[in-house]
Amino acid sequence: MENVKVVIWGIGAMGSGVAKTLLKKKGVDIVGAIDIGDKVGKPLFEVLGEEFPEKENIKVGTVEEYIKPEYADIVVLCTDSFVESSFDKIKKIIENKMNVISSAEEMAYPKAQSPELTEQLDQLAKENDVTVLGTGINPGHIMDLLVLVMTGALVDVKQITSRRVNSLSPFGPAVMEEQGIGISVEEFEERKAAGKMSGHVGFAESVQMMADALGVELEHFETGMEAIVTDVDRKSPYGEAKAGSVAGVAMTAKGMVNGEEFFTMDHPQQIEPEQVGIDTGDYVIIDGTPKVNMVNSPEIEGGLGTIAMLVNMIPKVINSEAGVVTMIDLPIPHAILGDFREQIKENKKIVK
Amino acid sequence: MENVKVVIWGIGAMGSGVAKTLLKKKGVDIVGAIDIGDKVGKPLFEVLGEEFPEKENIKVGTVEEYIKPEYADIVVLCTDSFVESSFDKIKKIIENKMNVISSAEEMAYPKAQSPELTEQLDQLAKENDVTVLGTGINPGHIMDLLVLVMTGALVDVKQITSRRVNSLSPFGPAVMEEQGIGISVEEFEERKAAGKMSGHVGFAESVQMMADALGVELEHFETGMEAIVTDVDRKSPYGEAKAGSVAGVAMTAKGMVNGEEFFTMDHPQQIEPEQVGIDTGDYVIIDGTPKVNMVNSPEIEGGLGTIAMLVNMIPKVINSEAGVVTMIDLPIPHAILGDFREQIKENKKIVK
Repeated sequence: MENVKVVIWGIGAMGSGVAKTLLKKKGVDIVGAIDIGDKVGKPLFEVLGEEFPEKENIKVGTVEEYIKPEYADIVVLCTDSFVESSFDKIKKIIENKMNVISSAEEMAYPKAQSPELTEQLDQLAKENDVTVLGTGINPGHIMDLLVLVMTGALVDVKQITSRRVNSLSPFGPAVMEEQGIGISVEEFEERKAAGKMSGHVGFAESVQMMADALGVELEHFETGMEAIVTDVDRKSPYGEAKAGSVAGVAMTAKGMVNGEEFFTMDHPQQIEPEQVGIDTGDYVIIDGTPKVNMVNSPEIEGGLGTIAMLVNMIPKVINSEAGVVTMIDLPIPHAILGDFREQIKENKKIVK
Repeated sequence: MENVKVVIWGIGAMGSGVAKTLLKKKGVDIVGAIDIGDKVGKPLFEVLGEEFPEKENIKVGTVEEYIKPEYADIVVLCTDSFVESSFDKIKKIIENKMNVISSAEEMAYPKAQSPELTEQLDQLAKENDVTVLGTGINPGHIMDLLVLVMTGALVDVKQITSRRVNSLSPFGPAVMEEQGIGISVEEFEERKAAGKMSGHVGFAESVQMMADALGVELEHFETGMEAIVTDVDRKSPYGEAKAGSVAGVAMTAKGMVNGEEFFTMDHPQQIEPEQVGIDTGDYVIIDGTPKVNMVNSPEIEGGLGTIAMLVNMIPKVINSEAGVVTMIDLPIPHAILGDFREQIKENKKIVK
């Protein structure tokens, strides 16, 4: 079998991580890397800042160069957070008869907020016999998939609390700016009122995915966003929050079923939580039969976790039936330490 | 769509639990219950010791009565622990064109120890267009599936420790006898030497499943079994271990990859662990990028967990491609709170 052929669209933090990870794996080749601006024309390894002596060093190019009919088995798309903004790109990949994995948070369960666009993509994917998946660490794993996997061992479920307490300290200047690290409470409230605080994208998708899998009807869904104001000065490699300013964002959501809060989502993200005695971790707490009281501490780091999911789901997407699929349709995610080709069904390979 | 039709073969502790759970669910009917001896001919609810006013109370019957061509969508087989001892039963169900879920520990990854029998069942299942799955809490979830799901968020894995520290106190007299609770150390060693201590069945299956999913070659595999000798008198509802006698069994296994212990399995099971300060729990510890340090405490109770997995995987097995499949081939397990029919693909329904 030919090596699995991958195009990476978007060589930012996520796309670069996917590239570096794939370049260390067996039986898989990066045959295309797409970006814009001054990265175009540069050798990929130069953009990544790392050499991979056993692998081919392709050039970063344009959409026209690398999105061509059956050019690769799959395109990993790392450009957007939303269904609407990634729709045209996904459509173009599908029309060129290649599978898609998207890092867009909303693509993890696109019908939650964009049922019509999802239906269009699903039809188109089926016509072209390819598969589209959105995934990442969250949504896609820690706050939804992992919760569902634990309910598999339960005969009944009464209430679910999914909590992710994470540190923003490993992230760079873009995330510090986006999450309002160091700004005043007034500015936070202004930005929030103007719809300019993104916080966490994905609760609508996580909750709808869990509701549909469990077979419960979501009567009401709402999210909350509050500033985490620090009492002490905090400093991370790329961020700084003086006492009294914003050190992070506390994101919450709830989903009502049968008139009660069935889904409780709790996701405070901040720089240097250890400094104020907060233990970071991923928590799954389920009131059911039996009960679940699970913690992974410290939390799975968001950047690495998303890169891993994008890479590890490649064979599952190639092997899947055609259409728009989600993490509840495919076999379980797991790391791939051997040859990627051993995980691929012969009849699903595009580049023979 | 007709309700999902289920036959339960074996109305012991597991089969009774499956029956009681299914009788509380929507869109699913128990259309057959098979046992031997004096249960045959009795109404199922009498055997279960519980009434279900909205459900039909069938009679417990024989294999001949309920294993008939396309009589049900699936048969849940709760009779054996081993591939060889359940082979003829599974074969008979397949030949009658019904899907199978088996609670036999070895069926969770049957090719680990019985590749030829697995191949025969796989061929036969494909010829009859039905699916066979073995599952349960362990093997099937806590010590293998859950570990793999966590590796999905990792770009690399160096070493895996899967630990399940559980209490045998909820179990009845049969388990107390089988696990040697209260016997002397000498008797334990005699039984062990004579191959009469079963301990935990499933390490070979869990480790081979993980190795195959990750794509690593298992060079060597071995298990260990040691008596847990108590320093203090311990008493559980059905068991008693005086100080100096056996309060449980410590099961271990290791799997070597590239000359190193890659898989470490650790599963001490005993009555009243709390009495000696032991916190029970399910632990997933992975040295990788990033690391995993996860605990669910107390552990998922084995009996309930296995019953849940047998019930919750019913739709996934009905929907699956034909053949012998395992937990790494199917979509993730999750609880089912709604109507079972909503989880079934129309074209895969046997009883239309």
